[in-house]
Amino acid sequence: MAEFNQPISGNDLARFSGPSTFMRLPQATSLEGLDVAFLGVPMDIGTSWRSGTRFGPKQIRSESAMLRPYNMATGAAPFDSLNAGDIGDLAINTFSLKESLRIIEESYQAILSGSVIPMAMGGDHSITLPILRAIAAKYGPVALVHVDAHADVNDDMFGERETHGTVFRRAYEEGLIVADKTYQIGIRGTGYGANDFTEAQGWGFQQFPAQELWGRQLHNMGAEIRRDIGARPVYITYDIDSLDPAYAPGTGTPEIGGLTTPQALELIRAMKGLNIVGCDLVEVSPPYDTSGNTALTAANLLYEMMCVLPGVKSR
Amino acid sequence: MAEFNQPISGNDLARFSGPSTFMRLPQATSLEGLDVAFLGVPMDIGTSWRSGTRFGPKQIRSESAMLRPYNMATGAAPFDSLNAGDIGDLAINTFSLKESLRIIEESYQAILSGSVIPMAMGGDHSITLPILRAIAAKYGPVALVHVDAHADVNDDMFGERETHGTVFRRAYEEGLIVADKTYQIGIRGTGYGANDFTEAQGWGFQQFPAQELWGRQLHNMGAEIRRDIGARPVYITYDIDSLDPAYAPGTGTPEIGGLTTPQALELIRAMKGLNIVGCDLVEVSPPYDTSGNTALTAANLLYEMMCVLPGVKSR
Amino acid sequence: MAEFNQPISGNDLARFSGPSTFMRLPQATSLEGLDVAFLGVPMDIGTSWRSGTRFGPKQIRSESAMLRPYNMATGAAPFDSLNAGDIGDLAINTFSLKESLRIIEESYQAILSGSVIPMAMGGDHSITLPILRAIAAKYGPVALVHVDAHADVNDDMFGERETHGTVFRRAYEEGLIVADKTYQIGIRGTGYGANDFTEAQGWGFQQFPAQELWGRQLHNMGAEIRRDIGARPVYITYDIDSLDPAYAPGTGTPEIGGLTTPQALELIRAMKGLNIVGCDLVEVSPPYDTSGNTALTAANLLYEMMCVLPGVKSR
Amino acid sequence: MAEFNQPISGNDLARFSGPSTFMRLPQATSLEGLDVAFLGVPMDIGTSWRSGTRFGPKQIRSESAMLRPYNMATGAAPFDSLNAGDIGDLAINTFSLKESLRIIEESYQAILSGSVIPMAMGGDHSITLPILRAIAAKYGPVALVHVDAHADVNDDMFGERETHGTVFRRAYEEGLIVADKTYQIGIRGTGYGANDFTEAQGWGFQQFPAQELWGRQLHNMGAEIRRDIGARPVYITYDIDSLDPAYAPGTGTPEIGGLTTPQALELIRAMKGLNIVGCDLVEVSPPYDTSGNTALTAANLLYEMMCVLPGVKSR
Amino acid sequence: MAEFNQPISGNDLARFSGPSTFMRLPQATSLEGLDVAFLGVPMDIGTSWRSGTRFGPKQIRSESAMLRPYNMATGAAPFDSLNAGDIGDLAINTFSLKESLRIIEESYQAILSGSVIPMAMGGDHSITLPILRAIAAKYGPVALVHVDAHADVNDDMFGERETHGTVFRRAYEEGLIVADKTYQIGIRGTGYGANDFTEAQGWGFQQFPAQELWGRQLHNMGAEIRRDIGARPVYITYDIDSLDPAYAPGTGTPEIGGLTTPQALELIRAMKGLNIVGCDLVEVSPPYDTSGNTALTAANLLYEMMCVLPGVKSR
Amino acid sequence: MAEFNQPISGNDLARFSGPSTFMRLPQATSLEGLDVAFLGVPMDIGTSWRSGTRFGPKQIRSESAMLRPYNMATGAAPFDSLNAGDIGDLAINTFSLKESLRIIEESYQAILSGSVIPMAMGGDHSITLPILRAIAAKYGPVALVHVDAHADVNDDMFGERETHGTVFRRAYEEGLIVADKTYQIGIRGTGYGANDFTEAQGWGFQQFPAQELWGRQLHNMGAEIRRDIGARPVYITYDIDSLDPAYAPGTGTPEIGGLTTPQALELIRAMKGLNIVGCDLVEVSPPYDTSGNTALTAANLLYEMMCVLPGVKSR
Ligand SMILES: [Mn+2]
Ligand SMILES: [Mn+2]
Ligand SMILES: [Mn+2]
Ligand SMILES: [Mn+2]
Ligand SMILES: [Mn+2]
Ligand SMILES: [Mn+2]
Ligand SMILES: [Mn+2]
Ligand SMILES: [Mn+2]
Ligand SMILES: [Mn+2]
Ligand SMILES: [Mn+2]
Ligand SMILES: [Mn+2]
Ligand SMILES: [Mn+2]
Repeated sequence: MAEFNQPISGNDLARFSGPSTFMRLPQATSLEGLDVAFLGVPMDIGTSWRSGTRFGPKQIRSESAMLRPYNMATGAAPFDSLNAGDIGDLAINTFSLKESLRIIEESYQAILSGSVIPMAMGGDHSITLPILRAIAAKYGPVALVHVDAHADVNDDMFGERETHGTVFRRAYEEGLIVADKTYQIGIRGTGYGANDFTEAQGWGFQQFPAQELWGRQLHNMGAEIRRDIGARPVYITYDIDSLDPAYAPGTGTPEIGGLTTPQALELIRAMKGLNIVGCDLVEVSPPYDTSGNTALTAANLLYEMMCVLPGVKSR
Repeated sequence: MAEFNQPISGNDLARFSGPSTFMRLPQATSLEGLDVAFLGVPMDIGTSWRSGTRFGPKQIRSESAMLRPYNMATGAAPFDSLNAGDIGDLAINTFSLKESLRIIEESYQAILSGSVIPMAMGGDHSITLPILRAIAAKYGPVALVHVDAHADVNDDMFGERETHGTVFRRAYEEGLIVADKTYQIGIRGTGYGANDFTEAQGWGFQQFPAQELWGRQLHNMGAEIRRDIGARPVYITYDIDSLDPAYAPGTGTPEIGGLTTPQALELIRAMKGLNIVGCDLVEVSPPYDTSGNTALTAANLLYEMMCVLPGVKSR
Repeated sequence: MAEFNQPISGNDLARFSGPSTFMRLPQATSLEGLDVAFLGVPMDIGTSWRSGTRFGPKQIRSESAMLRPYNMATGAAPFDSLNAGDIGDLAINTFSLKESLRIIEESYQAILSGSVIPMAMGGDHSITLPILRAIAAKYGPVALVHVDAHADVNDDMFGERETHGTVFRRAYEEGLIVADKTYQIGIRGTGYGANDFTEAQGWGFQQFPAQELWGRQLHNMGAEIRRDIGARPVYITYDIDSLDPAYAPGTGTPEIGGLTTPQALELIRAMKGLNIVGCDLVEVSPPYDTSGNTALTAANLLYEMMCVLPGVKSR
Repeated sequence: MAEFNQPISGNDLARFSGPSTFMRLPQATSLEGLDVAFLGVPMDIGTSWRSGTRFGPKQIRSESAMLRPYNMATGAAPFDSLNAGDIGDLAINTFSLKESLRIIEESYQAILSGSVIPMAMGGDHSITLPILRAIAAKYGPVALVHVDAHADVNDDMFGERETHGTVFRRAYEEGLIVADKTYQIGIRGTGYGANDFTEAQGWGFQQFPAQELWGRQLHNMGAEIRRDIGARPVYITYDIDSLDPAYAPGTGTPEIGGLTTPQALELIRAMKGLNIVGCDLVEVSPPYDTSGNTALTAANLLYEMMCVLPGVKSR
Repeated sequence: MAEFNQPISGNDLARFSGPSTFMRLPQATSLEGLDVAFLGVPMDIGTSWRSGTRFGPKQIRSESAMLRPYNMATGAAPFDSLNAGDIGDLAINTFSLKESLRIIEESYQAILSGSVIPMAMGGDHSITLPILRAIAAKYGPVALVHVDAHADVNDDMFGERETHGTVFRRAYEEGLIVADKTYQIGIRGTGYGANDFTEAQGWGFQQFPAQELWGRQLHNMGAEIRRDIGARPVYITYDIDSLDPAYAPGTGTPEIGGLTTPQALELIRAMKGLNIVGCDLVEVSPPYDTSGNTALTAANLLYEMMCVLPGVKSR
Repeated sequence: MAEFNQPISGNDLARFSGPSTFMRLPQATSLEGLDVAFLGVPMDIGTSWRSGTRFGPKQIRSESAMLRPYNMATGAAPFDSLNAGDIGDLAINTFSLKESLRIIEESYQAILSGSVIPMAMGGDHSITLPILRAIAAKYGPVALVHVDAHADVNDDMFGERETHGTVFRRAYEEGLIVADKTYQIGIRGTGYGANDFTEAQGWGFQQFPAQELWGRQLHNMGAEIRRDIGARPVYITYDIDSLDPAYAPGTGTPEIGGLTTPQALELIRAMKGLNIVGCDLVEVSPPYDTSGNTALTAANLLYEMMCVLPGVKSR
């Protein structure tokens, strides 16, 4: 076990102390030897309502100090099996969304030149489009598990074709994802017409609206998705607003009637066995939850995603 | 569709911009041509614990900018079927509860002189008594769907007979409501004796205490209420504190163990088909939830109530 | 009824007014004649992450002004049956955890010299160790209902053997509790190995991890625990972080995926009939929930625990 | 010294502990033997903009735990010279401003039947009118030191003649105060015409607009006022909004360009030697400053006013 | 007086009620007949640190409800002399800074086609560049009173030449302002070299660093600037971060050691007599001051700027 | 210049991005080659009122990202002259004040074994006692510039002799400081007797109570202190509560009537030329100022102290 990076234990150094990396992992200065790379994409200029997600990575890292290495519920011991580090933030251009997306794509191309699995902390959801471009360039079209209150399949917003609300239409059009292996979970709320959701169904997207999930446990649904995906490379993109605002108040475009954290955990835990090639957790907006609890939730979900990565063993 | 007022789209004008009306509907200067009138009753002097609901209408309108016109879950397209506007606030007297109640009643008499359905944003729950007086003057005693943590059937508070805790005893005594078509949903918490609830049962009120609803879906219960009411005119009064404080922290007299937002949505959606003659959403207290999420929830519930008004078609 | 202390009614004195005692009960200056003593243990120096629980008792008392004497759901009328008072705060030494624990133990020895049942408002969870020492000195080893996100069975933290994370290992080692009548409910999250939980199972502790309780009602589980305990003296220690952070954001070491308040109420209500000899409610940290709602929840849970004390009658 | 009530020392009982009385003085159950009575008037229904002052007394008392008995700057030792206690809150009727004002007046008549000096914690400024009625009934017209951003001399608001904005016109009309010994300090902001201030000058009021005080020390001005008042009975009414919002953000009708706390202290300290017969500190609204610092300021100003009461000796 | 638009009086309609326009002026649907147009430019994508200024106009308007029409300190009665309205928000593109700046410029060209004086509520400071372009197109190079913690004369930020930190270098280069009639007041803090300020001095800018203003009254300095400008058209751009964070905490790039609100008022009041052709108030970020006091300050400063517009008479 | 560590420029990497070190300096893994070491001492168990300073270092570092390397007011360019790094946090024991003080002393002994100047971010003020022990062990008794609202010269608190309120009595008794070269600046508030301050004057301490500094500029006072100290080694300990709560609300034991930030800057800037051997900035409590502005102030003051260290040149 000693061969892999370990989070600093709360019994060795007070939790409110030490490095501000994810789970107080070592700050990695290169990708060499890493199986998993946590990174921040601090950006909010792709968002349409409340801003603030530019501080998401900072607060997620801060709250992740509460996490310990072993998953008491599933037995997963991810730091026994994988070498993980925090590679810091991508150097986005906070004045230009277009330019930032370009930087993200290029950065991901570099990250993906090796064999590391990137785990991104957003930032608004627009970051996922350039990530998927780089992912698809390496792996071809991937299956996509997309947990969100929103389908994010607008054609444009104010004439802009690349924003946090258009990501998955672009991904579909550009062939970055396998349409009929794309799962949109937790979508809900108000829109402009049934077409807002059904058009994507026409492309093959499989949708699981929140109201069909209320009061249900998500083990089985997760298992069906897992079977349906099979051995394909899969990317998981987790918008924190998929959760009900009771569980995640600190986000930019909250929608009532969302998932619970038990459902979120059931869903992620059901992904064990998939060929996951990357993950992100987006849309945490610290100014709207200064308690840090939304970021704590995000940190937990990132950790749980790490626990189902290929190669993670239980003990 | 172009013949009816439409909310400004978030794709036409940034959501954090534009008029501060409900859903950024046009500010109506008269009731002429309106089927639905949203209005504010900014008041908190009828409340017994935390104040602040005087800012409720302002924050609900502000957060309603997130709403889009079409209901993705039910297919309702209320703005296709009904002409809606925001008629602004009633000009209450913030120094006198008695006088304010008189103003509200008179204002409602004027509003109800036409055929518009009023949708009020409170304000504390004391506003519902004068509203019901005006409603009953027009429609006779109405069925009442009352969603609340509290039965609000005290005889008096500090000797005052008209406060946010005495509304439905007065409504019963004055014959404003049909007692056995009055449904109190979500009531719970502590009291002074069983009589606090059972006396009203004796009048005919049908009560659905929160603890009997925990973990249940409310479709069926809602359907039974709908059948029981039949074709009678019905008024819906929605106290945000019916929700659990996890879902609606920004309120004046919170009680733990409340409804969830999925339950709230199931309940309202089950009201489709009723002859609803008016609605209110009360007790949002902005100083106790500066994130705006409680107000966002309130805005959603008002929108969902609009979606089940008579004449609203789906597409 | 007049013979026992009564909370001041919200109809007699505005809720935001009057004494800052628990439920605005009389401030007791001696234990004489009391059946139940509410007390504060304002302390946060035993906590490992966020501090602030030193203000817990103050905020719990403040929010308890919302509570009325009668339990609408269960019919319990605790103030008809038991004479209760608020005996104020223990005079801990805020600069020394060791010394504070000594003071708490000695204070409890004095309190327990009579027949009063102490109901403590914490403070961090480290206060429960000296309480149990005094309890066991009087009653011998007690059954323990321990509701918490954490098992609190570390051997030490930074070499210290008495902190909020080591309480129940010490209690076990010192024979303060009956190991196989110890119930840990709601535990979850991350740890260092399966052993973090299973070692205590080896001692006989019965554990009910949160993920096994998700979506379940807890009546039956509570009833089984009640039967299993039988007539033994039992102590209830309630860590507010057992609740999901959606329900109790204001705490020091939150863990996602926790209990709901309905579950908390079901659990406590199922304890009726047990020989409860003391209770505490710990880990409310006001700076992390300035709305007061976490403290309100805590106040309710303390009240509900009072409602199941021996001798409490219903009406 | 031991003969008089003393605040609990922070070295005897942790500051975050103990009774919630002003400065943790004994809760007085009668006026007997008291020279000074602190009391709360928890009310906000007389306010015109932000509410929340109903929680003012609670938060001022809470923050007053920071205060120690001796004034390091002036040497005043008020608890050596005067017997002080906290007599709790007046039992106002939160649903009726008129009725509350009546209650306040009657309560003050009772309080003033002895020789105690009442020190009131508001509450909105409307409480000062009934206080002055009772004061004048006992002492005849009094000199008035009125520190405020507002002159509070409106004739009516929404037709109401008794609100927080009409207090001193009523006091003038009713002959409760000596007009040319009335000093309005810190007034500023926007109005409806010069007359808003000048009419009161015509009655004899001496006004000290804030902009004439900017950057000045207030010793001399205070001394002039003191000389001008001479031996007359004088009442001090201190509206926290006289301070700049930087110093006192937690208030209902803030106005920029206000006094600093050094100026406030200089002003109060210059009152030493006057025949002060009562004081109040009003308009602290806790929801708008959850840090507690505005209330801490208020507690300090009340303490400083106590330090200049007749009979207070220095050491 | 009746001929001009008037703010709704707080004595006619409760302040927490009514339209959300600036000072509750009428919402103008055209510029016709207006002398002064208040407008919002809700934008934060030009900012480099904390975001949130997109909600600035909404909160400034909300807090402006506290303002009354007459300036008690100066006697100015701006609504007697000028017809003012709120023309709403510019429809910026929240995903593109470049595009938004283009929209602002075009919108201002339209606004300036008549004779109205625009008073903009930001938004981050990048909005001032397109405003100055339109202003200069109409008036030629203008004198500029620039109150700010920052000189905003960077050459670029991340390669972008149009951000909130480069505005006045661009304005200088493009000849939009008269360099030696440009006054930068309140600049301070840290930088990269003396050149950060001195280069602009070389262009002719007159700089008044904050530390030279500490403890001074600004009447005389203001008067000198006024004389120096003479009859030229002048634009005033007011960055709220010129104020000390004690006075204006809700801003994106706060710097300690700033101006006080008395200084701000003295400065603006000294501008009376200038040929002011436009004003803006920028950088209010509501998420960082939920009390609303920063926005209240901003609303006051906008009002005070209106009070010194050409043609405003006193009474 | 390239030979020394430089803060990351906000023009190279967005300020909300990158390492969470002080000013985004390199994280130093050894002291080798460092002239200045910033470090955190995250602790709050030595505080007597509000806790939360354990998160002080984290928030100060976070807000320090706003700082640029050059001092615009003084011309100091500290990173041209000195090699600075952030050496992380001391590994205190959060459950034992005594043990933590021991750890701090030992850590400082190690740090001081070389020639680095330590700049500590607290933490409560109790950290300064072990720091001074290590400082005196190296340098002998030092001159002390102590800026604080409190003299911190209690003999004990609850019998404990080492807390945040007893530091400078212990330092005096132990001969760690030169008594007549000890300057206490900004002290004020309430106490138990004149002796609270005068006893220390008897030891030789030179005290500058806040009320004597109100409205004054502190250049000259600073210069006198500098001359009085001469060439002696001097330690600067800066308690953020020396500032008025308007300027630094986020602290544990606030006192009204404090210093302004201009005064703080004048004072520190006057220290240029002294033989400063170490500095600390203590008592920032993030939960009481979630805006971050108090921490921003702290970061600025630390930077300003660095600017007056021996060897710092201007340009
Ligand atoms: Mn999304
Ligand atoms: Mn989303
Ligand atoms: Mn109600
Ligand atoms: Mn209710
Ligand atoms: Mn625990
Ligand atoms: Mn716990
Ligand atoms: Mn007043
Ligand atoms: Mn006032
Ligand atoms: Mn600027
Ligand atoms: Mn600026
Ligand atoms: Mn100190
Ligand atoms: Mn201090």
